[in-house]
Amino acid sequence: MAIYFHWTGSSIDLWQSVLQEMGIESPFYTSDQTFDPAEIEYAIAWAPPAGQLSRFDNLRYVFSVGAGVTHITEDPTFNPEIPVVRLQDDMLVQDMSGHILHWALHFHRHYHRYAQYQRQKKWLRHGYPENSERRIAILGLGQTGLDACVRLRDLGFSVTGWSQSPKTLDGVTCLHGDAALQTVVSGADILVNLLPLTPKTTDLLNKAVFDKMPAGGFVINCSRGASITDEDLIAALDSGHLEAAALDVFRTEPLPEDSPYWMRPDVHVTPHAAAPTNEKSAARFILGNIRKVLDGGIPAPIVDLSRGY
Amino acid sequence: MAIYFHWTGSSIDLWQSVLQEMGIESPFYTSDQTFDPAEIEYAIAWAPPAGQLSRFDNLRYVFSVGAGVTHITEDPTFNPEIPVVRLQDDMLVQDMSGHILHWALHFHRHYHRYAQYQRQKKWLRHGYPENSERRIAILGLGQTGLDACVRLRDLGFSVTGWSQSPKTLDGVTCLHGDAALQTVVSGADILVNLLPLTPKTTDLLNKAVFDKMPAGGFVINCSRGASITDEDLIAALDSGHLEAAALDVFRTEPLPEDSPYWMRPDVHVTPHAAAPTNEKSAARFILGNIRKVLDGGIPAPIVDLSRGY
Repeated sequence: MAIYFHWTGSSIDLWQSVLQEMGIESPFYTSDQTFDPAEIEYAIAWAPPAGQLSRFDNLRYVFSVGAGVTHITEDPTFNPEIPVVRLQDDMLVQDMSGHILHWALHFHRHYHRYAQYQRQKKWLRHGYPENSERRIAILGLGQTGLDACVRLRDLGFSVTGWSQSPKTLDGVTCLHGDAALQTVVSGADILVNLLPLTPKTTDLLNKAVFDKMPAGGFVINCSRGASITDEDLIAALDSGHLEAAALDVFRTEPLPEDSPYWMRPDVHVTPHAAAPTNEKSAARFILGNIRKVLDGGIPAPIVDLSRGY
Repeated sequence: MAIYFHWTGSSIDLWQSVLQEMGIESPFYTSDQTFDPAEIEYAIAWAPPAGQLSRFDNLRYVFSVGAGVTHITEDPTFNPEIPVVRLQDDMLVQDMSGHILHWALHFHRHYHRYAQYQRQKKWLRHGYPENSERRIAILGLGQTGLDACVRLRDLGFSVTGWSQSPKTLDGVTCLHGDAALQTVVSGADILVNLLPLTPKTTDLLNKAVFDKMPAGGFVINCSRGASITDEDLIAALDSGHLEAAALDVFRTEPLPEDSPYWMRPDVHVTPHAAAPTNEKSAARFILGNIRKVLDGGIPAPIVDLSRGY
């Protein structure tokens, strides 16, 4: 049995040292090495080339180097019966909450306006609602969404969370299911997208949703770019109905040079940096999971491909 | 007995309605009205003209419309035996913590760099230490400083607080006294000033302090502008020793048009907006205090003028 590894730009030395730490002696191959595909039982991957994983007839588990898995499962040759394990890392949760907190405070307190005023040497103060009157909605209540809700709630904001299945959280209004989405969106001064990308969430944030948001609203997207219909967001900003957006993810990444987002002062572009994978804690989490399998256990969390997360 | 009121730009109607709410029937005079100075027992003021308050021979208490009081006490004609009551408002604390949290996250996660990259259409990600390895120091542990420490600590940052008198706070290193300031500053990647302005804190943040800070450090000033020696901060930024600063307060406000701060991309100017006084809650707090005096009580918190806060 052997491990196949595809994560461009990661340090092999680091993985070797964690393999040793975990007492794993299996061969560890990268795509540029020569090996027998039948040997591979475990694959660790970020965006592997299409068709690559389907060459491994004895593949038992795929480990995603990230919280999302579409970079693996969107390959039509990928066998959906092979369990995919996603990365779960407390640091990812902390980083994502920090990103959301930052942009929520940024928009709530008008720091985006002050940055523009500064260039005009303009000393002008804006009022803002009390935190308890600022309504923030989080779409997606996985581990990260729940943590972001708690932190925003603890700052005194009025927080609503939305998910497919029912959830409960003290001091946070939790709604679920397709019908409730309209209610959530129409009461969201700041709308935060944390939904995984599935056929259902592709283009979910479109004209209908932006129209329903209160005038002067803000959008924070830190999950997947294809959840937003870009033309619709731009139209909502152009009309002045929405005030600004903070986008960390895009339909195509890196963001192409001709994207209109780059030059808009009302769009804040960050380079998919909300919760970057920490190599060392990723190596420990994934190789710890392989250690578990070698000892006869089952790795976690395995993604439910019918739901997409 | 009567109340003198000097807060340019505030709505008198709002104060009249809160007077009624509190059942206070005393005359309420603004500076442009005619009244007998001997009648005045209470003054409510923001930056009253020099010499104004000393005309009131029967003045019992002055209420500051803000957490600071130097705008009242720096007038050399002001009688230091008259108790000055400062504004204490949970909203001020919440707002100040929100401001500090925002800028700490902003610098920690390099959003200031991404804003510049965006204008160059540059897709470039920067690593950053884990929150637990990012050292943030708060100078000043009043109600606001303590709250900011707790919120930063809860996000996992490494927090040190410094004050004149000893304080303790779970999970936060608290140091006090002049000698300890050197230690605090030399371990501060992000230095936050919340100290009241006194002769001791004027120009406290100068070349010696900036030199001691770790290379690549950040300064957040949201207390009083005169605590920073501006030329020294600019030199530290110019040399590249400090990376950036977020300044909400300035030696002269509004910030004069010829200030070099306006045009620096490494200085983020906000117009004394970190914790603006909320008129309604200020009126309730101050007139509630006057109600207490009318009922035979003592207002709070009275500022210790020997310490300056």
